[in-house]
Amino acid sequence: MIDFNALLKISYGMYVVSSGNKDKKNGFICNSVMQVTAEPAQFAVCCNKNNFTAGIIEKTGSFSISALQKDTSPEILSKFGFKSGRDIDKFKGLDLKYGDTGVPILLSDTVAVIECKLKQTIDAGTHFIFIGELISSEIINDSAEMLTYDYYRNFKKGFTPKNATTFVDKSKLTQVIASEVFQKYKCTVCGYIYDEAKGDEPEIKAGTTFKDLPDDWVCPVCGAPKSDFIKLQ
Amino acid sequence: MIDFNALLKISYGMYVVSSGNKDKKNGFICNSVMQVTAEPAQFAVCCNKNNFTAGIIEKTGSFSISALQKDTSPEILSKFGFKSGRDIDKFKGLDLKYGDTGVPILLSDTVAVIECKLKQTIDAGTHFIFIGELISSEIINDSAEMLTYDYYRNFKKGFTPKNATTFVDKSKLTQVIASEVFQKYKCTVCGYIYDEAKGDEPEIKAGTTFKDLPDDWVCPVCGAPKSDFIKLQ
Repeated sequence: MIDFNALLKISYGMYVVSSGNKDKKNGFICNSVMQVTAEPAQFAVCCNKNNFTAGIIEKTGSFSISALQKDTSPEILSKFGFKSGRDIDKFKGLDLKYGDTGVPILLSDTVAVIECKLKQTIDAGTHFIFIGELISSEIINDSAEMLTYDYYRNFKKGFTPKNATTFVDKSKLTQVIASEVFQKYKCTVCGYIYDEAKGDEPEIKAGTTFKDLPDDWVCPVCGAPKSDFIKLQ
Repeated sequence: MIDFNALLKISYGMYVVSSGNKDKKNGFICNSVMQVTAEPAQFAVCCNKNNFTAGIIEKTGSFSISALQKDTSPEILSKFGFKSGRDIDKFKGLDLKYGDTGVPILLSDTVAVIECKLKQTIDAGTHFIFIGELISSEIINDSAEMLTYDYYRNFKKGFTPKNATTFVDKSKLTQVIASEVFQKYKCTVCGYIYDEAKGDEPEIKAGTTFKDLPDDWVCPVCGAPKSDFIKLQ
């Protein structure tokens, strides 16, 4: 028996994994990051083969990991999680630096950064596992708490992109039965669903209808305005 | 520049990874666990090559992951984290079951379990990365919170075994300067250090001397009695 709800009991942080150089660079939101050895310190990151960043890591042989802070802006979660670097420059307007290997390292909304030189590329099917050796690391903001995947899903009600290692079709998860009196509205930018039965706590109380939301309310995940929402049937 | 404090900003859960069968079985505490693909669902676990469990996973071709709950007993943390299955039967007296592949699966103090069939073994130097495909998964205790590595380190003041991927020599970390009036005592079983300046919050207030600890106080990590502690110079 497979219960996909059990897979949600694996804990992760939330990171932006970046690669490239000053001329060409990209990054993506990644939760599948872990240290794999201590001496020397090596880290593994999972990257969908379709991600624009995958080819850049293979070509340049280095990547960086920016551990995101708990109150990371919707702008960063939206750009790095749901948009492609083939279409936009995700780093535009954000703080970044370049590491010893020349790799871009996101600094905005970041607790700590780790720079790695690629040592092994593992083919795991839909994803590559890139294993890199630690080149440099630095605390950027020691007073900020780390953003965990659990917090992102349960408190920010954030969605998981289809390219993520942990994507699960919602139909496979146990449904929470909400009152049928309330409607749901979907953000067409990132897929977030505003459920009137649940509201957008703590600011927007459970039971607040979509039309009663303030005009300046925006999608808590990607920052899209109310006009980007459609009503679900 | 490498700041090893930055490496502590990677988030993990805490798991017991087990392998074997009814006759021969073992497991170890592991924080380096992550999902690496969604379709099919595959998981990676890191295991020191010296761990007794490493050889058992290679031989039997399967492993299980038990996601530990926040209030996991010191007995489980001590046995699976700091003792070797070459010396003791770690499962003795604990709840367990056997999966479809015959692998032992720890159920005590467990939130959810995942059973995997080994697909790839990656040599990462000191550690193997075992990649397994999901065979079965189940929620064991949905009301329990998950134990995170961050909570284990910062609130339970737990130590990291030398075989772990995230082991860092304390000398590499920024020291917190405590008042020199207070002494420190080390648990000879697991390495936990009772620092009089910090106490053992919330029960034992900061500033409580070792001799003023209740006689029935035990090591918060492994449960060893006061008599197993030695004073540090």
